[in-house]
Amino acid sequence: MSYEVRGLHEECGIFGIWGHQDASKVTYFGLHSLQHRGQEGAGIVSNDQGELKGYRDLGLLAEVFDSPKHLEELTGNAAIGHVRYGTSGSGGINNIQPFLFKFFDGSFALAHNGNLVNAKSLRQEVEKEGGIFHSNSDTEILMHLVRKSQKDTFIDRLKEALNQIKGGFAYLLLTEDAMYATLDPNAFRPLAIGQMKSGAYVVASETCALDAIGATFVRDVEPGELITINDEGMTIDRYTEDTQYAICSMEYIYFARPDSNIKGVNVHSARKNMGKNLAKECPVEADMVIGVPNSSLSAASGYAEMSGIPYEMGLIKNQYVGRTFIQPTQELREEGVRMKLSAVRGVVEGKKIILVDDSIVRGTTIRRIVTLLKNAGAKEVHVRISAPPLKFPCFYGIDIENKKELIAARLTNEEIREEINADSLEFLSEEGLIEAVGLQLDAPYSGLCMAYFNGDYPTKLYDYEQNLLNDQGV
Amino acid sequence: MSYEVRGLHEECGIFGIWGHQDASKVTYFGLHSLQHRGQEGAGIVSNDQGELKGYRDLGLLAEVFDSPKHLEELTGNAAIGHVRYGTSGSGGINNIQPFLFKFFDGSFALAHNGNLVNAKSLRQEVEKEGGIFHSNSDTEILMHLVRKSQKDTFIDRLKEALNQIKGGFAYLLLTEDAMYATLDPNAFRPLAIGQMKSGAYVVASETCALDAIGATFVRDVEPGELITINDEGMTIDRYTEDTQYAICSMEYIYFARPDSNIKGVNVHSARKNMGKNLAKECPVEADMVIGVPNSSLSAASGYAEMSGIPYEMGLIKNQYVGRTFIQPTQELREEGVRMKLSAVRGVVEGKKIILVDDSIVRGTTIRRIVTLLKNAGAKEVHVRISAPPLKFPCFYGIDIENKKELIAARLTNEEIREEINADSLEFLSEEGLIEAVGLQLDAPYSGLCMAYFNGDYPTKLYDYEQNLLNDQGV
Amino acid sequence: MSYEVRGLHEECGIFGIWGHQDASKVTYFGLHSLQHRGQEGAGIVSNDQGELKGYRDLGLLAEVFDSPKHLEELTGNAAIGHVRYGTSGSGGINNIQPFLFKFFDGSFALAHNGNLVNAKSLRQEVEKEGGIFHSNSDTEILMHLVRKSQKDTFIDRLKEALNQIKGGFAYLLLTEDAMYATLDPNAFRPLAIGQMKSGAYVVASETCALDAIGATFVRDVEPGELITINDEGMTIDRYTEDTQYAICSMEYIYFARPDSNIKGVNVHSARKNMGKNLAKECPVEADMVIGVPNSSLSAASGYAEMSGIPYEMGLIKNQYVGRTFIQPTQELREEGVRMKLSAVRGVVEGKKIILVDDSIVRGTTIRRIVTLLKNAGAKEVHVRISAPPLKFPCFYGIDIENKKELIAARLTNEEIREEINADSLEFLSEEGLIEAVGLQLDAPYSGLCMAYFNGDYPTKLYDYEQNLLNDQGV
Amino acid sequence: MSYEVRGLHEECGIFGIWGHQDASKVTYFGLHSLQHRGQEGAGIVSNDQGELKGYRDLGLLAEVFDSPKHLEELTGNAAIGHVRYGTSGSGGINNIQPFLFKFFDGSFALAHNGNLVNAKSLRQEVEKEGGIFHSNSDTEILMHLVRKSQKDTFIDRLKEALNQIKGGFAYLLLTEDAMYATLDPNAFRPLAIGQMKSGAYVVASETCALDAIGATFVRDVEPGELITINDEGMTIDRYTEDTQYAICSMEYIYFARPDSNIKGVNVHSARKNMGKNLAKECPVEADMVIGVPNSSLSAASGYAEMSGIPYEMGLIKNQYVGRTFIQPTQELREEGVRMKLSAVRGVVEGKKIILVDDSIVRGTTIRRIVTLLKNAGAKEVHVRISAPPLKFPCFYGIDIENKKELIAARLTNEEIREEINADSLEFLSEEGLIEAVGLQLDAPYSGLCMAYFNGDYPTKLYDYEQNLLNDQGV
Repeated sequence: MSYEVRGLHEECGIFGIWGHQDASKVTYFGLHSLQHRGQEGAGIVSNDQGELKGYRDLGLLAEVFDSPKHLEELTGNAAIGHVRYGTSGSGGINNIQPFLFKFFDGSFALAHNGNLVNAKSLRQEVEKEGGIFHSNSDTEILMHLVRKSQKDTFIDRLKEALNQIKGGFAYLLLTEDAMYATLDPNAFRPLAIGQMKSGAYVVASETCALDAIGATFVRDVEPGELITINDEGMTIDRYTEDTQYAICSMEYIYFARPDSNIKGVNVHSARKNMGKNLAKECPVEADMVIGVPNSSLSAASGYAEMSGIPYEMGLIKNQYVGRTFIQPTQELREEGVRMKLSAVRGVVEGKKIILVDDSIVRGTTIRRIVTLLKNAGAKEVHVRISAPPLKFPCFYGIDIENKKELIAARLTNEEIREEINADSLEFLSEEGLIEAVGLQLDAPYSGLCMAYFNGDYPTKLYDYEQNLLNDQGV
Repeated sequence: MSYEVRGLHEECGIFGIWGHQDASKVTYFGLHSLQHRGQEGAGIVSNDQGELKGYRDLGLLAEVFDSPKHLEELTGNAAIGHVRYGTSGSGGINNIQPFLFKFFDGSFALAHNGNLVNAKSLRQEVEKEGGIFHSNSDTEILMHLVRKSQKDTFIDRLKEALNQIKGGFAYLLLTEDAMYATLDPNAFRPLAIGQMKSGAYVVASETCALDAIGATFVRDVEPGELITINDEGMTIDRYTEDTQYAICSMEYIYFARPDSNIKGVNVHSARKNMGKNLAKECPVEADMVIGVPNSSLSAASGYAEMSGIPYEMGLIKNQYVGRTFIQPTQELREEGVRMKLSAVRGVVEGKKIILVDDSIVRGTTIRRIVTLLKNAGAKEVHVRISAPPLKFPCFYGIDIENKKELIAARLTNEEIREEINADSLEFLSEEGLIEAVGLQLDAPYSGLCMAYFNGDYPTKLYDYEQNLLNDQGV
Repeated sequence: MSYEVRGLHEECGIFGIWGHQDASKVTYFGLHSLQHRGQEGAGIVSNDQGELKGYRDLGLLAEVFDSPKHLEELTGNAAIGHVRYGTSGSGGINNIQPFLFKFFDGSFALAHNGNLVNAKSLRQEVEKEGGIFHSNSDTEILMHLVRKSQKDTFIDRLKEALNQIKGGFAYLLLTEDAMYATLDPNAFRPLAIGQMKSGAYVVASETCALDAIGATFVRDVEPGELITINDEGMTIDRYTEDTQYAICSMEYIYFARPDSNIKGVNVHSARKNMGKNLAKECPVEADMVIGVPNSSLSAASGYAEMSGIPYEMGLIKNQYVGRTFIQPTQELREEGVRMKLSAVRGVVEGKKIILVDDSIVRGTTIRRIVTLLKNAGAKEVHVRISAPPLKFPCFYGIDIENKKELIAARLTNEEIREEINADSLEFLSEEGLIEAVGLQLDAPYSGLCMAYFNGDYPTKLYDYEQNLLNDQGV
Repeated sequence: MSYEVRGLHEECGIFGIWGHQDASKVTYFGLHSLQHRGQEGAGIVSNDQGELKGYRDLGLLAEVFDSPKHLEELTGNAAIGHVRYGTSGSGGINNIQPFLFKFFDGSFALAHNGNLVNAKSLRQEVEKEGGIFHSNSDTEILMHLVRKSQKDTFIDRLKEALNQIKGGFAYLLLTEDAMYATLDPNAFRPLAIGQMKSGAYVVASETCALDAIGATFVRDVEPGELITINDEGMTIDRYTEDTQYAICSMEYIYFARPDSNIKGVNVHSARKNMGKNLAKECPVEADMVIGVPNSSLSAASGYAEMSGIPYEMGLIKNQYVGRTFIQPTQELREEGVRMKLSAVRGVVEGKKIILVDDSIVRGTTIRRIVTLLKNAGAKEVHVRISAPPLKFPCFYGIDIENKKELIAARLTNEEIREEINADSLEFLSEEGLIEAVGLQLDAPYSGLCMAYFNGDYPTKLYDYEQNLLNDQGV
């Protein structure tokens, strides 16, 4: 289980269904299994014989739909839904999706996962022509481009718009007579199609949502595709041929749920392989292997299995930590009061420990964990990271801190080790990561996006070009 | 981590502190790490130079203290707190503890973990003499007995009252000038004393609460003891010599947090040992070992280590399941919609699985999990339970369903196996359990209460005598 | 309409019904018309074939019963309810009534309007014998006395208890097989019996509650009476013969709703008469008569009618002022920002005004109103109070500030006039008040309690004796 | 006081301030006195040195700003605010104003009172060109027109836009460097300018808001004017010369607060005059005059004064009726349970009554009141309405039911009298109304809009032309 909130954040999960009498309820349960992709807000729009009805609010899904009546009012046999993670300052219910647009000639709902790299300049263009935006979100730009298009059919207008936007995106679009699913030309973000026993098609950010509603996996959406699902069934079309796989490697490493498969690869297994490769690349003598809960347990068990060193539960995560929790004061913190993680003294005391984590962003969290273990009596703590060092920001939908705050962009390995107070520190190699995931796509890095590690961005950066030059990241 | 809510429920966690300027805040953080012991309600009473102030409400700790002001108003340098699990029907804020009593000649606060076996008859006696109770709880009886006692000193009145009540209890009592901690003559429930860096004494249901606030473990409270903590320090006294250890074995098996130690035994390690003994007693050929998250992961890893069969993450628990969640309809359930647990198809498909769980109450949950795994493609599912079969109700503070509903009280091992659809089913032996925990106390079963397994109750049953004869349990 | 919250506060309204299938709903609507008697909390206990069920919380009635399910769960054909006004510091849900007591041999619910003068000493006595109280309220004492009584029947125990308590009280008591209504020997507080079309008996603090539910007035409860209502009908009994009317004059002047009748006298008419007598006693030349909304409009219209001076709407009360309203800062207040009352410049500018109000407590409110009128251009403001000056505290159920804070206990008429910035100030005489109400009971002051005006308390003061001597009031 | 919610609804109140350090707080208090103009939602946008910040939500003002922090975050020395009444179905926070628009080249906030008659066709035009609306509200259209204008300066673009929209509107517009106030060419809606002691200019829907914040009245905004307020002071400009007064007569009759002045006429005095004229036009012999609280008390006192018949309080309105109140079932209603209004039996029994109300929409409310009085013993009830019969819908900002539901559009006077069970029924004449208000403007009906009474609409009806022809109203 690797889906809690930490230093890195996914920006959203989407789910859609067409042709089920309980469409909005199924969407609710589908979104529930995508909750790890966004906790700031949630919403659902349903289609009842052409009439679109929506409900959305800030909070966890269960907080937004805290009364059954909200769901019951979303009648109809099609629906799309969204869970949102929002960057700080971008709050406000206006940004909660799906967006619902009502025009004199039709209604549309839109849900988006990803980040565009030319949204700012496109928005400025639209505004110069008198267009009005109502959110800070990248998402809205697509609807403006569609409405401004001079093409004859809706499909052609949509294709034209999709060719204008750049970056990482998975979109679900609900109209009065169809649901559309589409993916960017690099397939940065995952998007899978399934089918329920009753025949209804569903589309979801991760396959775990298909499992959660008892749907069978049909296929992944491929880069550049535009899928139409309506009462006639599913039609596969594409808006561009200019595609190349660059699946976000952080989905495998950290974000996606371990029970999801992305492009056929099970996430837990990929992580376990990362742990195994890490054990091969960076062995060290020790009494036990401990994973940082919950996201690094798979990698840690892989490390243990490969190294033959026992896997132990040396850290306990308090499952009741929520957003409303009162934080300890600095004074109490210094007395040792802590809330989230506890070291199990009875397990770690006097022991040499291999501590497996999946990433180091600023280094503060891992330093706190190392200290926790040492205070509980651990003799040595050897940190092993199941991915290469994070050195570059992401512009395709992951809220990675800007470059200056990435500790690995500033310090050498030895300097980091010292900073985090570990006895040794090693990272998995890029090759080890690629091999562990095991994609064999005809694209650089076998089809993974490795930009966070090596700065090799798969697209032009448009509005962000300057950011990067300034060395400031996003 | 074994602290989610399932078929069995602990009845409460308690925490107290004397001599710290942030007493109520420390209590809040201490209670937070005891949240697994009760989610129905929470409360704290502080002592500000003799004035007792309290706040309590229904809900999780973070919901009760959802505004910093509630905590800030609980000034003073001593406090006791309580998290409550309540049996159905007993709801209502009147039952949330600590209870706060204000008399013309002094104030008292009381927090209780456990269950008395003669509460009903004592209550009737008090009512016959004109006494008025304001809760359904067993807890209040102690205060009535203290107030009715004719002894000269408060300590003597308290001791007299403690000798009148029978069953399982750990009490914290806060008065205007001291905090008292006391344990029943069998030590059914755990209770530990710690000390903070600043010198303040703390008392808590589990040692994980000491770790969470940076306190050092001092000693466990022993059966029959009455501890007084005040500005002079700590005094150890006892109200009875007639004691014999019978520590609740379910604390080790299921309830306590894995990072807690009870009577010197780490809970995670005890569980891992149970898993190891289970592997020795009940081996079976398989491809992998899977634990039911979260409570059985320790036992599962022990089984895997002892058997040499790989430990895998074949079940994922959705961490966002809360009380407010809308449940799927029966219809959707039949289509396969589920919320809490998912099987990881990519891991289990086509595999022979050893599924480790820590208990079977009614059998419905484990049957659902076996089905889940089989639907995800598991070839065989061999269920191994890391404790003996539950056959008798508990009267000392654990909400075990009455005997009729305990599947192992009704059916043979083979009948249960069939009912839960497993390919094989085995339980740990009583000896295997006792050996795994490893207590070596001079008492039956080395100091464990084994009544749930064999009906050998360590005390007379008083008001419950008849229940048992009727074969109906509680 | 004289029922808003100001300087004086009524302590509670009670309502009960026996023999109606929608008992708790009728109670809800009855209580709603008594909401002016208490806004701090509300509760209802119903009796469903001997089982008593209750719900209560802090807040207005509509806030407490904010979901229909709370009412729907209170099944049964009898119910009692309570709205509470609480003095500051006495908050907490423990004090919200009706109190519900569950004993091994029966259940009881209790609702109280009034204040006892010997509650403190009785409580201390009970506590010395081991009794435990759970509220700060006077109310609970009655149940302790009943339970401690050695009499044979419940009725006899109740009568014995009623003879032990002293002061002002109207009680409603619900048991498994009857509802009891009783009034103190002076009838300080009003209590009326009515009957619905369906035959069900109801009892309420004011007759406006009878009107609100379509019930016909039957009779007032008389001092010293104990009314039993059960499936056999209504029985009138009494616990004492030692009675003498002393009806709270503030009920007529300020507290009760104008549409209520107390002992046969309509409250609006009594107030109008007070205004007329005031006009006769204290005439002054002016352009218009203005009443302070809402409580003084009746008296003002009486003054206008008697004097022949036009009655105008020169003050407007903002009806949206609630408890959650943010208050203006001192700075904004000085700039003239105000929230509750506005003077109508178009009406008062350049005019000589007679301003009628019903009482002066500390003088701050009336000074603010006079200033408001003068700032809006009023040439002269002549204040006329439709009651005598308040000089003594009340111990029978009205939260009148202690003597020191009563401006009329400290200052002469002329000093008050100066303090409140009025051009003249006059009060109604005691005789004028008595004549206006028009009771003709065989008791001092024709049956009114005039203690607030002249210190002539109708009972011994017990626990408050000392307060009064110290000149500190309550 | 005539500002409760009944059959007719005002659509919104607006308030703005420039140049005050507590701008948003003053706006809060200003809006509070306009709460009667809209209870569905509220919002405020402030300007802190060019940065616009907003907060809005559904509910009463005090519910929206239920925490001081919401206001405190709205820093800056200028602000505009809005209270909204929404027609059913138009709910949703998207429609709560002020609207806040953030463009690459500047930010704007917009608040609107009124209704446009060509909004629908303008919106369709904008959408055809690719524009996207985010609310159902008429308000947003202005911003689209401004942004699409090709004029050079902002003022010119705004003027062009104002000339395109038709109907009733009062707008407040907040930009980074100024606040704009503008009124439609007929001055349908009121809009007044004031000045605080500190020099800050304020603009508000009604003068009662000026009084509430201690501001001095400066002047009314005149039809066709565009007022600019910025750090230089106030500039008066106009966007059209083609103007003619047609002030909404319902503002005087029913909507505005009695302490407001509109175009120099005090609303209470106008209503009192309506009552006087009504007494002259439609006298009847009776014992007392009663007004329907709260809106008809002024007119009733005028009727009483002119006729010499005593003015009495024969109806009491329960002030605690809120939106969350549980309604009586039909069954209880038939037993006589009622919540809002009570008749004072002690006052009306056996009496001939003149009942003054200000309007009859569907006739159901007045019928209920007449019945209430008769059930309380009134011998005769003569209904007098202080305005002419409502026969036509309004398209300029008042939610008058469509023509079919207006009882006076369907039935004769005698038929209505029978339907409402009155002993006689009379309406004020159009002349009597015009005379009572006493405007002397050079325009039809002395400057009043009388369309609801005689169908003489002051503007072309554009999108509503067809509605009217269909006899269906809005």
